Amino acid sequence: MNLVVVGSVALDSVKTPYGEVKNVLGGSAVYASMASKNFCKTHIVGVIGSDFPEEHINLLQKNNICCRGLETKPGETFFWKGVYNNSNNPETLDTQLNVFANFNPKIPLDYCKYEYLLLGNIDPILQLNILEQMENPIVTSCDTMNFWISGKRSELLEVINRVDILFINEDEIKMLTNQQNIFKAAEIAKSYGPRLIVIKRGEYGSMVKSKDFIFFAPVYPVREVVDPTGAGDCFAGGFMGYIASQNKFNNDTIKKALIYGTIAASFCIESFSLERLKEINIKMIELRKEELKKSMIF
Amino acid sequence: MNLVVVGSVALDSVKTPYGEVKNVLGGSAVYASMASKNFCKTHIVGVIGSDFPEEHINLLQKNNICCRGLETKPGETFFWKGVYNNSNNPETLDTQLNVFANFNPKIPLDYCKYEYLLLGNIDPILQLNILEQMENPIVTSCDTMNFWISGKRSELLEVINRVDILFINEDEIKMLTNQQNIFKAAEIAKSYGPRLIVIKRGEYGSMVKSKDFIFFAPVYPVREVVDPTGAGDCFAGGFMGYIASQNKFNNDTIKKALIYGTIAASFCIESFSLERLKEINIKMIELRKEELKKSMIF
Repeated sequence: MNLVVVGSVALDSVKTPYGEVKNVLGGSAVYASMASKNFCKTHIVGVIGSDFPEEHINLLQKNNICCRGLETKPGETFFWKGVYNNSNNPETLDTQLNVFANFNPKIPLDYCKYEYLLLGNIDPILQLNILEQMENPIVTSCDTMNFWISGKRSELLEVINRVDILFINEDEIKMLTNQQNIFKAAEIAKSYGPRLIVIKRGEYGSMVKSKDFIFFAPVYPVREVVDPTGAGDCFAGGFMGYIASQNKFNNDTIKKALIYGTIAASFCIESFSLERLKEINIKMIELRKEELKKSMIF
Repeated sequence: MNLVVVGSVALDSVKTPYGEVKNVLGGSAVYASMASKNFCKTHIVGVIGSDFPEEHINLLQKNNICCRGLETKPGETFFWKGVYNNSNNPETLDTQLNVFANFNPKIPLDYCKYEYLLLGNIDPILQLNILEQMENPIVTSCDTMNFWISGKRSELLEVINRVDILFINEDEIKMLTNQQNIFKAAEIAKSYGPRLIVIKRGEYGSMVKSKDFIFFAPVYPVREVVDPTGAGDCFAGGFMGYIASQNKFNNDTIKKALIYGTIAASFCIESFSLERLKEINIKMIELRKEELKKSMIF
């Protein structure tokens, strides 16, 4: 099955205790696609500037990611600069929206027929617009962030009501639901409409809440977290990619999807940009999955 | 088999968003014993003042906890007063050591022959002293806190080197090892000597590191955390109680012990003081264990 991934495509400058990179490939749609492509045919939708290096397009295409949904606009590509100081939360030093400021995604007509959709963290008005364009998707999902929770709450709640899966991190769901207890927060978010609430808890793993069950995943033990950028996007990409590959949305595939998202994120953080992700194949993913399983079974 | 639990016996005044209690039964040895008694014969060692209410002794005895190791000294019982403001970490408002200030535990002679030992968070010099008194225990364990990590590091390292299991929370192990990555921190702590490092991660669950494996447990989902006081002690008590009950210290019992510790802590936090713990039996524990298992298996 096919997954459409919509989000930012960026050039990032990142500094962590492990080093520094400048103007490297990044963005939520890129990270998510590089995770989902291991599982299913992935189609990326985003906007790039005329400065966007050809080699980045080549990398995505070499990884079997369909790039027809990447629109080139005059101007510069979205730029983000951040620093991680012994924490998994970056301090943003610079954000230049550039062509991303007027991003108004037009989904290619053939993409509109696809079955699976991941809406990266963008303006909920755009997310709604994309949901309108899709014809009859089987499973839709969205990510979001504190900026939209406080700034466009009613539009965001409409998105959340319409998607099947909400990806959200721990702090954000507490903010969204005004509830500090994570289990109550998950129940409240569930009452907003989605079939699944997937909570990303950084180095503490993740949790999924459905009508029937709660399921927890720890992180895969990574000893050298070189750069946490994109981990949450890879998590969502791995999750949706696996669901799309199985074309089944049941308790079993949902639990496994949480594990595959976990593994995708574990590779992402082992390098800057996509250096590690671009080396990964399904065999390496399966190895980590089996290893993680041993850390969870009693 | 028999478990000896050494630590504080306290009267606590606690305020949380759920209410307030004054001069209720608490202390690390009490919480740990009330968890372990579900699994094995438990012997508590501590000091109380002449003000200590008879009813508290009765409660412990009614729960099959041997109290011959409780020494009564002239003066008042250790008193702690704290408040939890929407967090699982309390703000201490008052600490009166009272008779605990000169606590110098003398283990009853018959206790010295027992097989399992849990040293609650007390001065590492006292912990060493107790280790000397025990004749030939099968498995020994200790808890500690930031105060001893910074204040009596060399003595603490000697204790850690001598015990089989170190119970420690996330912030404390990072402080102890001067390492922010939890997996590296666990490896460093392991190199200090113990066979097991058990890391308590509050609402994110726990993790155990042995020579052979890492194993993770999430928390049991508690929606109303009435009072977090004693959760870490109950965790250690449940863990050691289960190991003592099996009289086996292998990979299988260690993993299960982490789960039983988790379940013990989950009951603890559902009420102030020991109100909930005193209602618990092994059947209720097994039910939660099976429920938690479903949240971990994929």
